[in-house]
Amino acid sequence: MNIEGKNQVIEAIKNNVTINKILLDKNYISRKDDVISLAKKHNIKLDFLPKKVLDSKSVTGHHQGYIAETVEFEYSSVSDILEYANSTNQVPFVVLLDGIEDPHNFGAIIRTCECAGVHGIIIPKMRACQVNETVIRTSAGATANMKIARVSNLKDAIDDLKKANLWIYACEVGGEEIYSKDLTGPIGLVIGSEGKGMKQSLRTYCDGIVTLPLNGSINSLNASVSAGIAIYEILRQRKNNK
Amino acid sequence: MNIEGKNQVIEAIKNNVTINKILLDKNYISRKDDVISLAKKHNIKLDFLPKKVLDSKSVTGHHQGYIAETVEFEYSSVSDILEYANSTNQVPFVVLLDGIEDPHNFGAIIRTCECAGVHGIIIPKMRACQVNETVIRTSAGATANMKIARVSNLKDAIDDLKKANLWIYACEVGGEEIYSKDLTGPIGLVIGSEGKGMKQSLRTYCDGIVTLPLNGSINSLNASVSAGIAIYEILRQRKNNK
Repeated sequence: MNIEGKNQVIEAIKNNVTINKILLDKNYISRKDDVISLAKKHNIKLDFLPKKVLDSKSVTGHHQGYIAETVEFEYSSVSDILEYANSTNQVPFVVLLDGIEDPHNFGAIIRTCECAGVHGIIIPKMRACQVNETVIRTSAGATANMKIARVSNLKDAIDDLKKANLWIYACEVGGEEIYSKDLTGPIGLVIGSEGKGMKQSLRTYCDGIVTLPLNGSINSLNASVSAGIAIYEILRQRKNNK
Repeated sequence: MNIEGKNQVIEAIKNNVTINKILLDKNYISRKDDVISLAKKHNIKLDFLPKKVLDSKSVTGHHQGYIAETVEFEYSSVSDILEYANSTNQVPFVVLLDGIEDPHNFGAIIRTCECAGVHGIIIPKMRACQVNETVIRTSAGATANMKIARVSNLKDAIDDLKKANLWIYACEVGGEEIYSKDLTGPIGLVIGSEGKGMKQSLRTYCDGIVTLPLNGSINSLNASVSAGIAIYEILRQRKNNK
C-alpha cells in the first residue's frame, strides 16, 4: 500500500505509519529535503529512483516525487479490542460501523476514534469499505494507532461485546435524544451506512437507539460528522462523570 | 450549475434546490420514472433529450440519464444573516470559515449548519472554496436553505457581528476546553482551514478560543468533523439552558 505526495508522506512518518521505504525522484528531490531528514530520524530506508519508476508505481498520479511504501494493514480481532480496552483500565468504548462505503467517511471516522480514545472499531467483511490507501490517507495515519476488527457478522460481534458487559447503542434517527441518555458505561456504538442507515435486524438487536437533534429541513448529517458528534458526546459525558 | 445522477437529482428536488429544468435521456428513462412524477409534483420543467446531449453537458461523466440544471447560488450579506437571525427570535448563531479549501468539507459543514439551525455562514472571497457543484451535492441540498455570505475580509465581518452583540469564538487547539465554556449567548464560531488552522491575526481578534479534547496521538480531527462537534456542543448547551 502506498502513500503519495510530500505532505502525505510527512504526515505518515510523524504519525508512525509503518513504512517499508520511501521512494524519491532522484532528479528532483534535493538532499536537504525535509522528508529525507525526517525519514533518517525515524530510520526509514530511502530509495532514489528515476521519475519514470515512481510514475509506474503511482496510483493517484500525484506523487510529487514522494512515495512511501507502507506495510499492509493488519486487522485485529474483537477479543484483541476487548483485551486492549481492559488493559487501559478505562471504561470500554468500541465503535461498530454497519456498512460505511465511502473511504473518506471511513478514514475520517477512524481519525475521530483515535482522537477520542476509542479502543477499537468493528466493521463487516462484506458490503463495506475496507482499510485501503484512501482510508489510510484520509485517516491522517490514525490507522496505525487503531485496532480494527473485520467480522463476517456484526450480530455475532455484538454478542461478544454484550458478553463482555458492554451496552450496545445505535446512533440513528427515531430514538432517544442522545443528550438525555447516560452513556458513561461500557459502550458499543453502532453507526449506520451513508445512504440506508442501519439494517433493521441489527437495530432491534441493540440495547437502545440514540438520536442527534435535527433542527433544519435536511433530514440527516454526513455519516462521519454524525459519528464524530456522537463519539464526542460520549467523551464529554465521561469527562463530566469523573 | 448541474446536479447529475438519479439519487442526486431526487435529493435536490426533495430539498427544494432551485432547479431550472431536468434533462432526461429520452431513450433510457421510462415515462413512469420516480424522477418524472416527483418533478411534476414540484412543477419542474422536463426536457427529454438524446444521450449525446446529456453527455456533452455532463461534468462528472456519471449522469445516469439525469441532469438537473440549477439556478446559480445567490450569496447573502452579513446583514442579511443578522436580520434573519433576529427574525427567528432565537439566539443568533453564525459560523465563519477561515479558508476551508475542500469542497467535501465545505458541503458537509453547510449540511451540519442546516441540521443544527445555524442562521448563516460567512466565508472569505479569496483562498477558500466557494459554493460550487461539488459543494451543493455534498451538502445534500442544504445550500438551498442556508444563508452564505462572501466577504473580502473576515475581520470586518467579525466587527459587524461584534457590533450586533455576538461573541466570537475560534474553535482551535490551545484554548479552553469547549465543554467548560458557556456558549449559550449570541455567537460567531470561527473554524480554521484544513491544513493550517486559523490565521494568527484572526485568532487574536476573537473573544476566546474553544478546544476539543484530543486523547490520541493524532493531533487534529477532520475539519468538517471538528466543526460538527463544536456546532452540536453549542446546540446541546442551548437545549440544556432552556
